[in-house]
Amino acid sequence: MKQLKIKQQTLNGSNPGELCVMATGGGAFKFYDKIREALGVDVLREDEMECLIIGLDFFITEIPREVFTYSEMDPMHFEEPRSDIYPYLLVNIGSGVSMIKVSGPREFQRVGGTSLGGGTLWGLLSLLTGARTFDEMLANAERGDNAKVDMLVGDIYGTDYGKIGLKSSTIASSFGKVFRMKREAEREAEDTGGLTNDDSGSLPPPTSSLKPLAPPNISSEASEPEPEPEPSPSSFNAEDISRSLLYAISNNIGQIAYLQSEKHNLSTIYFGGSFIRGHRQTINTLSYAIKFWSDGAKKAYFLRHEGFLGAVGAFLKRQPRNWGRRGSLEELGSEQMEKV
Amino acid sequence: MKQLKIKQQTLNGSNPGELCVMATGGGAFKFYDKIREALGVDVLREDEMECLIIGLDFFITEIPREVFTYSEMDPMHFEEPRSDIYPYLLVNIGSGVSMIKVSGPREFQRVGGTSLGGGTLWGLLSLLTGARTFDEMLANAERGDNAKVDMLVGDIYGTDYGKIGLKSSTIASSFGKVFRMKREAEREAEDTGGLTNDDSGSLPPPTSSLKPLAPPNISSEASEPEPEPEPSPSSFNAEDISRSLLYAISNNIGQIAYLQSEKHNLSTIYFGGSFIRGHRQTINTLSYAIKFWSDGAKKAYFLRHEGFLGAVGAFLKRQPRNWGRRGSLEELGSEQMEKV
Repeated sequence: MKQLKIKQQTLNGSNPGELCVMATGGGAFKFYDKIREALGVDVLREDEMECLIIGLDFFITEIPREVFTYSEMDPMHFEEPRSDIYPYLLVNIGSGVSMIKVSGPREFQRVGGTSLGGGTLWGLLSLLTGARTFDEMLANAERGDNAKVDMLVGDIYGTDYGKIGLKSSTIASSFGKVFRMKREAEREAEDTGGLTNDDSGSLPPPTSSLKPLAPPNISSEASEPEPEPEPSPSSFNAEDISRSLLYAISNNIGQIAYLQSEKHNLSTIYFGGSFIRGHRQTINTLSYAIKFWSDGAKKAYFLRHEGFLGAVGAFLKRQPRNWGRRGSLEELGSEQMEKV
Repeated sequence: MKQLKIKQQTLNGSNPGELCVMATGGGAFKFYDKIREALGVDVLREDEMECLIIGLDFFITEIPREVFTYSEMDPMHFEEPRSDIYPYLLVNIGSGVSMIKVSGPREFQRVGGTSLGGGTLWGLLSLLTGARTFDEMLANAERGDNAKVDMLVGDIYGTDYGKIGLKSSTIASSFGKVFRMKREAEREAEDTGGLTNDDSGSLPPPTSSLKPLAPPNISSEASEPEPEPEPSPSSFNAEDISRSLLYAISNNIGQIAYLQSEKHNLSTIYFGGSFIRGHRQTINTLSYAIKFWSDGAKKAYFLRHEGFLGAVGAFLKRQPRNWGRRGSLEELGSEQMEKV
């Protein structure tokens, strides 16, 4: 940073006092003192949501081959940059999820969100699968089969539940197969004495199994003999678990985003944030959710630089007057238009 | 069952051929042949949703001290039975969640739902905590502190994010603290050689840590020195995990239910199904979610016999003509009213 400071002074002749770091997000406030001290330059803290929106507006209106929709046939269908962008819904997926209604330049409102976001996926998968990086988790999900852990409509009905429009492949309950299968294996282990030498501490002592009460709505199934052999719990592998949870989180965000867009009459939904990472399964699931819930009336839009909205927005808030061909901030707009 | 068959013939003089079992839910279809064979009586399969609604209508209109709302001050505030009940939203929470718009007697449509339901909670908690029964899971949740695993707004900002109306105690990311804390502990263990003798297989070999890539939106925090000591991963205990997941699932259902009620102009929202089980935390969270999202305009209604809607509905579909004081099914209504 100090080298950069010297370089900057040499190269572009800015006033040294003007060198600063634009910072946004929670860390900009929480770590303000530490950043200032460590870098030895001024730190300007900018509002996270405002920066997100400024960044997004810039990407949507100015950058070609940036905004795209997804379909199996055409996984990256680019949209032309456009100027009539308002109003729209921005769904920003980081550790948590914020949904922001944007009505005009710097005119926005957080209308909702969900705590089930990237942090939930990373946290649960790091506990369940031992994966250490998000990329590892996504690679696992890529190879997994969620039907091994999810209860599908077909698992419950043996067929579609056509009367209310549910296909047999629809996920009825995420992780819905796990509890019963795990309990069955444990009971079996108890019957064969498999637990008598268990001292790992990972399971409660066998005495607690005196009350093997299954949740009521599945107990009727569990107490009936099984019509077909189920896979054993050892088949709960990291890949299947990762796929199931990625689907669950993405589907859920997609549904809530759709419902919020309905409530606020927003026909365009952009997805941004570091959760997506250009990962095909994630983009596919979010796209599918919007298409499914809107009966094909709405589309999910993605950005190639989804993880950088806030950073670019913070930079743009302080862009040097002589930077770039066009102004992307409204107060610079008219002024610069005259020059062009 | 055979004894019951004989008893029934002796006692109420029904035509023996009329003795039957009313069955509903997925199992009624999937296990039809097995049930018939095992019980030796006729099995009448009834549509799950229809039975649910018939049961609920009966409970709402006929049974005193059945429907209640929740508040901290008055945890079980009973509503009077009422006759003008339509339209309403029924949120039925079993392994998965169905949301059903009910416009009149037997007039209903499944408008949505979520795969994040009871099955998800039971499945994930059985993997994460070793709990064997739903009651055990709820008891764990009762004692837990979700702030140990959830990332709160205050953890990110150090304070409220007032500008967009988020309190510091709001959950920003469910399980949002887990990933970072687990990674930090692992890195520490690697630094001190703690992993060199590890052969449990539960963690990948240390070589994979050559790329210790944290998800981008939290990496900036992770690479900064911590301002305050964080609890160690050993503090991820079953109680905290259970509480966090119970909150996450219940909050999420509450939000989606609210949004669906908005979309379909339904001011009354009933919660039913075996997930709730009269558990205070669950009822509290669902109530809070509806109040929070509707700005106090809507209330969540619960039922004392929430787990029996479908069973009672199936029974009512076939009630003997001479049963009860009043007809609760619309086609019996006028006929029986004359007798009363």
